[in-house]
Amino acid sequence: MSEIRKHYFLPEYCIIAEGRAKRPSDFAGAAKDSEKNHSESCVFCGGNEEKTPPATAAYKKGEIFADTEKKRVRNWDFRCFPNLYPALSPAPPSPGFRGKGLEAFPGFGFHEVIVESPVHGKKLEEFSDAEISGLMGVYKDRVCHYAAREKIRYVSLFKNSGKAAGASQNHSHSQLLALPVCPQVLERELKAIREGEKCPYCVLLEKEKTSTRLIRENSKFVAFAPYYSTGPFEVWILPKEHISFLGDFSPELLFALGEILRAVLRSYGKVLGNLPYNHMFYQLFETPEYHLNLRLMPRISTAAGFELNTGIYINTVSPEKAASYLRGDINEPTREKVGREK
Amino acid sequence: MSEIRKHYFLPEYCIIAEGRAKRPSDFAGAAKDSEKNHSESCVFCGGNEEKTPPATAAYKKGEIFADTEKKRVRNWDFRCFPNLYPALSPAPPSPGFRGKGLEAFPGFGFHEVIVESPVHGKKLEEFSDAEISGLMGVYKDRVCHYAAREKIRYVSLFKNSGKAAGASQNHSHSQLLALPVCPQVLERELKAIREGEKCPYCVLLEKEKTSTRLIRENSKFVAFAPYYSTGPFEVWILPKEHISFLGDFSPELLFALGEILRAVLRSYGKVLGNLPYNHMFYQLFETPEYHLNLRLMPRISTAAGFELNTGIYINTVSPEKAASYLRGDINEPTREKVGREK
Repeated sequence: MSEIRKHYFLPEYCIIAEGRAKRPSDFAGAAKDSEKNHSESCVFCGGNEEKTPPATAAYKKGEIFADTEKKRVRNWDFRCFPNLYPALSPAPPSPGFRGKGLEAFPGFGFHEVIVESPVHGKKLEEFSDAEISGLMGVYKDRVCHYAAREKIRYVSLFKNSGKAAGASQNHSHSQLLALPVCPQVLERELKAIREGEKCPYCVLLEKEKTSTRLIRENSKFVAFAPYYSTGPFEVWILPKEHISFLGDFSPELLFALGEILRAVLRSYGKVLGNLPYNHMFYQLFETPEYHLNLRLMPRISTAAGFELNTGIYINTVSPEKAASYLRGDINEPTREKVGREK
Repeated sequence: MSEIRKHYFLPEYCIIAEGRAKRPSDFAGAAKDSEKNHSESCVFCGGNEEKTPPATAAYKKGEIFADTEKKRVRNWDFRCFPNLYPALSPAPPSPGFRGKGLEAFPGFGFHEVIVESPVHGKKLEEFSDAEISGLMGVYKDRVCHYAAREKIRYVSLFKNSGKAAGASQNHSHSQLLALPVCPQVLERELKAIREGEKCPYCVLLEKEKTSTRLIRENSKFVAFAPYYSTGPFEVWILPKEHISFLGDFSPELLFALGEILRAVLRSYGKVLGNLPYNHMFYQLFETPEYHLNLRLMPRISTAAGFELNTGIYINTVSPEKAASYLRGDINEPTREKVGREK
């Protein structure tokens, strides 16, 4: 029993195919990361500041400092520094000649690591109110910092949590990549948004606020399992207010964002255990038509040949079912059929 | 040191970022599958035909037979049957009501498994000439079988080899999904192809035939590491002749396709060891503008938050370097920097 669902406003499809007997706890077992609370060798831990490039910004009691080559800031709350193995860099060499008709640009850009706590093993869901809204403030700062740079057209802000989600460091951190191109993914959304009369995110928000896919809301945000979900337990968080860029967030919005993100992560923990996941900000600056959104994707399923071939994802847990688990409606998962093997 | 490369003819980008010291053999260690040559419990092995749904087509010495519920064909060479946990099915129920403005279609379609040999543990690269071209013939037959069905608009033919590539069965097999929609991925390519004067695949073929990215060619096909590569050691195989559909392949083309595919897989084995990989056919029927191509993707890197956020892939091995390894130019990998950790 399956259905093919269309994206809210793009000509893209996913397949919701609830097949084999699988409970969320079975997923948890499948992809669990080995949790290591070692600190000695961790280059992101407080006290090991010499083991990374100098911090561009070290946040300490609300103030911002910077490392020098000789002296590193200690006792920070959040710490931002260039990735030691950057995908893009501020002064790249020109690409070699590749032949007529092939385009390449220098790998210009910025690649930053944001360490979220000096304490090893501390997770976002355990953060205090002050810590989580502090981190959202850092997110805002760093995005603004790079959006203001010349030639930067997109700032990708994301978190890889766990090895299966692409993290090479266990210590809680996010990353930021500032690019000289706007990704096609965003260009396509923007084209569809500009062609419509109303903001399609505002429209879908109205719908999801009262749908069976709603997970929770607070004064400023709504968290739901999107109707078009490319993977089990995907969650989108949208501001109720039409706002396009993290740089425009008020302190109240930042607080409410941290609060709802932490709440969704706590739900993940209860339902799925310590599962690898990614979260990604979709946002554009100087583009008021866009409606910022934050997407969370637990790394449960593997994109295989079919997904690579078609861009159509097979999701074995319907968003309605996922939302029900994440809201806590189902505390003792029954032996219902909510999974499917490839 | 990195560069941003544009796709041959789509407005899409990838980042080639050769960073940390990694040899291909290091990749091999990282993602190696546990090879189990058990046969007793394998439902795909010859002799265990009762353990799967009845075969729609069992190929035996060039002839095609079909199972009945009561009697299964034995001693087959290739065996095709419906996936026990199909993502799509021929007679699905209608989707439930999901709310105004949300589109869903019944999960109509076909999902087939193609078992490539009765022998457990036998790999495509070990196939004889007759076996590999026989398999290409089966691919052609099955694609034609489903392309001819009413309401089918795309047939996705792919192979998941190894657990990290999405395979749940160790025994060598491919899969086929026949869909009632044409994937956007293909629609976008087709739009760009129709807007140009010449077939862009014919154009890129001319370029790659003499480039440093060429891996090998035979009378009918060219195999190369594409300039725009979304992952380490990605390979594209293109027919020299402009042909859009596997259904139109002559026996000579089928033979040459099998020959070059097997050769690339042997190169993978030499350079990367027993690494998980996917291969996918990109093709369209009743669309002569399209130029069929077969893509191979070893599963070395993990798509993380950045890739999910932007659709831009960071590839740590340049296609020029990958081709050099796969051609066998570099037999004793030096300690060159060809990898990067996230």
